[in-house]
Amino acid sequence: MKLFYSPASPFVRKCMVFAHHLGLADRIERLSSAAHPVNRDRNILPSNPLGKVPTLITDDGAAIFDSRVICEYLNVLGNGNLYPSGEDKWRVLTEHTLADGMMDAAILARYEGAVRPENLRWSAWSDGQMDKIVVGLGYFEANAQSLADRFDLATISLGCLLGYLDFRFGSFDWRTQFPKLAAWNLVFSALPAMKATAPAA
Amino acid sequence: MKLFYSPASPFVRKCMVFAHHLGLADRIERLSSAAHPVNRDRNILPSNPLGKVPTLITDDGAAIFDSRVICEYLNVLGNGNLYPSGEDKWRVLTEHTLADGMMDAAILARYEGAVRPENLRWSAWSDGQMDKIVVGLGYFEANAQSLADRFDLATISLGCLLGYLDFRFGSFDWRTQFPKLAAWNLVFSALPAMKATAPAA
Repeated sequence: MKLFYSPASPFVRKCMVFAHHLGLADRIERLSSAAHPVNRDRNILPSNPLGKVPTLITDDGAAIFDSRVICEYLNVLGNGNLYPSGEDKWRVLTEHTLADGMMDAAILARYEGAVRPENLRWSAWSDGQMDKIVVGLGYFEANAQSLADRFDLATISLGCLLGYLDFRFGSFDWRTQFPKLAAWNLVFSALPAMKATAPAA
Repeated sequence: MKLFYSPASPFVRKCMVFAHHLGLADRIERLSSAAHPVNRDRNILPSNPLGKVPTLITDDGAAIFDSRVICEYLNVLGNGNLYPSGEDKWRVLTEHTLADGMMDAAILARYEGAVRPENLRWSAWSDGQMDKIVVGLGYFEANAQSLADRFDLATISLGCLLGYLDFRFGSFDWRTQFPKLAAWNLVFSALPAMKATAPAA
């Protein structure tokens, strides 16, 4: 398999956590790419018109995206159990979507603060995106007990989000405001698949 | 069930197409809402920290989002067959993601052109979003033959995207550039579940 890759993308990381955990990482060749919302990476477009990472090319040459479909594919390929099937299925799928949506918000805030020309930035937009993250972290803080000992697509996405906040929003001190989540992350981020995929400082 | 609802959202429409097709529409109470990326609708936040529509509240009181999880939930609830299971599973799931991603791009372009203060708009940003849509439509145009007679989550999302383009980007003449897609949409948009959910002109 081949993966259009960026070491900074939390959505790429989520897929790579799946790959590491499922023993598939060695089968994935990384295609370096420069996904960008304005200067679109034309190398990705024939496989994915959205021009985004992650985009997976299977051994049969088929393109698979986005991270949600890639993770489901890897989970099947690796006979994994990272997807919920019991009565908590809808809650876990929704928590996964919540963490993914917080990552989307973080990326939009990053584009606003680092990609858009300075004179065209709108602080209310960034504030709206960051508020999604703060309210979402409040949800996970209130439900921190339910996160313990879980390694599934929702907790993986949450772990990748927290890593991305530290990587790109170092001045946002979420640990003080959400101490149970900080304690959970201390354990979760030390798991092998998380350590193997952490963004470089 | 209750659904945080907006008649303009293509993602809400996708869920409502599922509901109509599966005979579940009458069981869904619509909660009017004012989802907005800056002036966040505080009524939605206790159910969905992202403050987005669609957000579904089940009869058990559980919150389910986003549209992908809601559609999967409705498909199970209504014993539907709108999800692929055969060897074309990954292609259909990826086409669904592509159409969803094009809807996301259209909404970002809409925010840029209608929500953001005029003096802070960045035409290169809008151009980048619209390019995702144009390249994506090119994919579907090239594969228009495979769309015929299909009513599944990918074609539903594509139909909702095209309806949204007509609704919000009326000056974008996609029909001339993508004639096979236009012919397909003429048939698809006349299906009962699509007609019942079309945005008001």
